[in-house]
Amino acid sequence: MKSYADIAGFLPLQTRKVPGGPLAPEGFIGGAVNAGIKSEMSKRNDLALIVSTEAYTHVAGTFTTNKVKAAPVRLSQARLRAGEGTRAVVLNSGNANACTGKSGLAAAREMAVAAADKADIPVEGVLVCSTGRIGVPLPVARIREGLGRMELGRGQGGGDALARAIMTSDTFPKCLAVEVKTSGGRFRVGGMAKGAGMINPNMATMLSVITTDAHIPKADLQRLLRMAVEDSFNRITVDGDMSTNDTVILLASGASKIRPPEKIFFQTLCFVASELARMIVWDGEGVSRFVEVEVSGAASSRDARRAAEAVANSTLVKCAWAGGDPNWGRIMDALGYSGARMTESRVDIDYNGLPLVRGGEQAPTPWKKILTQAARPRLRVTVDLHSGPYRYEAWTTDLTEEYVRLNLGE
Amino acid sequence: MKSYADIAGFLPLQTRKVPGGPLAPEGFIGGAVNAGIKSEMSKRNDLALIVSTEAYTHVAGTFTTNKVKAAPVRLSQARLRAGEGTRAVVLNSGNANACTGKSGLAAAREMAVAAADKADIPVEGVLVCSTGRIGVPLPVARIREGLGRMELGRGQGGGDALARAIMTSDTFPKCLAVEVKTSGGRFRVGGMAKGAGMINPNMATMLSVITTDAHIPKADLQRLLRMAVEDSFNRITVDGDMSTNDTVILLASGASKIRPPEKIFFQTLCFVASELARMIVWDGEGVSRFVEVEVSGAASSRDARRAAEAVANSTLVKCAWAGGDPNWGRIMDALGYSGARMTESRVDIDYNGLPLVRGGEQAPTPWKKILTQAARPRLRVTVDLHSGPYRYEAWTTDLTEEYVRLNLGE
Repeated sequence: MKSYADIAGFLPLQTRKVPGGPLAPEGFIGGAVNAGIKSEMSKRNDLALIVSTEAYTHVAGTFTTNKVKAAPVRLSQARLRAGEGTRAVVLNSGNANACTGKSGLAAAREMAVAAADKADIPVEGVLVCSTGRIGVPLPVARIREGLGRMELGRGQGGGDALARAIMTSDTFPKCLAVEVKTSGGRFRVGGMAKGAGMINPNMATMLSVITTDAHIPKADLQRLLRMAVEDSFNRITVDGDMSTNDTVILLASGASKIRPPEKIFFQTLCFVASELARMIVWDGEGVSRFVEVEVSGAASSRDARRAAEAVANSTLVKCAWAGGDPNWGRIMDALGYSGARMTESRVDIDYNGLPLVRGGEQAPTPWKKILTQAARPRLRVTVDLHSGPYRYEAWTTDLTEEYVRLNLGE
Repeated sequence: MKSYADIAGFLPLQTRKVPGGPLAPEGFIGGAVNAGIKSEMSKRNDLALIVSTEAYTHVAGTFTTNKVKAAPVRLSQARLRAGEGTRAVVLNSGNANACTGKSGLAAAREMAVAAADKADIPVEGVLVCSTGRIGVPLPVARIREGLGRMELGRGQGGGDALARAIMTSDTFPKCLAVEVKTSGGRFRVGGMAKGAGMINPNMATMLSVITTDAHIPKADLQRLLRMAVEDSFNRITVDGDMSTNDTVILLASGASKIRPPEKIFFQTLCFVASELARMIVWDGEGVSRFVEVEVSGAASSRDARRAAEAVANSTLVKCAWAGGDPNWGRIMDALGYSGARMTESRVDIDYNGLPLVRGGEQAPTPWKKILTQAARPRLRVTVDLHSGPYRYEAWTTDLTEEYVRLNLGE
């Protein structure tokens, strides 16, 4: 089985991992239950609720840029714009409540009402996330009934149970928490995410809820989340290619009474968001390789991004990775049609640090060495265009026969 | 086996098919030979030459927009810019002569010299096309030797032999010719093409040579070819996503002495180019379905194209087609992230003429009827955004496990 350990990033200084995922920070309770949303026969939990126990919780959110937005996204965006009092998120799998028209919006509202009753807070305090099949009416009665049976608490296993309840085609739950020691005291950031089959540019839904007990001024929270998402979840999407339901929510309870230096909080938030994003990529359907594509030396940041995304999303390049074939011709081809300014004779490409292309032609590195690297489950492809100072890094995977088989239809 | 008949378009009026492909029009001779370009052991022809016997032949060409251009593309572009006297094209498969630096350009020049010797015309008269593996030196000596052995002639089977010599992963040769009756007399347009594995957005090389014995003023030829390519080969590419070697060349010998009305010639040229483009799509690696995606009602022509290409290139949509699953949620999702202006509640989608979505929600068409259409090898997906007067049509295929298997590497 796949393990997150195979692709984990480096822990920042003064930081240690702790159990509990989104329930690890102080001031949060949650629960998960099987509401039979997809089918009454299913044995898996499919409904989760996370609530801050602190009245002065601050909340930020980033949402899909898709012009077709699911009902829960429209509801949550409106609630966050309206302002104060938000402190809970209710999430379901098995049904995306997308392309469901006006009745879908009414169903999302009813789901929020049921969650507010359970958490004993005003309905304005509840955000909603849904993931699953598009175009099917949401079974609200089952959700209400499921929330009635739900037990809210903390407990170290709780975060993992929440992460499991939002899984769709995910093969493992995605959650993580860290504790950071600062001169002023300790604070925690935790989070969970779901997403698989998310081989861009055509992602399945990505949902994430991140929590912290740090005290972060409301004015800063949205900006910090946006920047962190840019450095993490957005590395695995292509310019605006988002599903109808994509949502990242950050709740700051302030329960630790610590207000860490902004730089340290941001670094920690980025770490948690990045690790969750990497787990999503790694859990892509049928994925056998995790690939970091870094393009440097670009003439603009847009060029760097375009070039990296063209390589990361070329079906031919991705098939070659699946086959362990370091086919640099396909990479050159993708760079060439990316739209980024470039000169063929200046391009350098490295495979896991080994020179593969120098000046647009094959480097003298022994092919056997390259093949050994190409066979590893973790690849780092670095491209230097030698045309400017800008860089961008995208995270992607190979494309396997299994991916296609899994997506033939339901 | 796949047959072109399964996806053929409608013949224009006063037009009939004739054998001979690019050698069907008067004033052309050609030949094909096995030069052992990829390997000396191969039993397949891999080198072709087509020559106009008329001194006043007019030639036009369109080339890849990829910033990484193969040596033969750079050579042919320079020759066409330089002007008069072009009347032959030499083509090889097995080696793309791309990413080969300065020695690659020298090799393309030597290949032209050898072809000019064979055709007994000045070297400036020869254009060069190559397709095959990138980054490998072109074996020029074998090409020279092969051209020495080649027999040039007409003969009805000749066009087919030429089309076979430029095949790479193609499973069938692509050639076609038609004869058109006008009040002034008869003229012919013929052509051949290669390309497969060309499941956009990451196409393998597409080459095509189209010939005609109509007399077309040089000043018009390039414009007409560009418009015809826009209506045919460009329907199967995504905005600028072209391989390093893509080339379409049109030679007009004038040997019929007929100067047809421009409209009739253009319609015929479009028909031949479209049919060749459809053959290329249909021969995509592992393809089981040919899909026309039409988007109408867009707010701009750019919006129409973006929307059609987003649907045509969504890996999730293409996997659903492979599975015979009319998953309209994935289509809505792709429309939503395409960047085209749209309102979810106005979108209509039809599957082979059956209403699938009306006003952004599932239409009441019996699902069994839809499934029957979704199982056919030929699909027409029509989307009406009801947001303006613009339309665009893209041609694509499904995405199967076999496609991935074929592209794991060489």
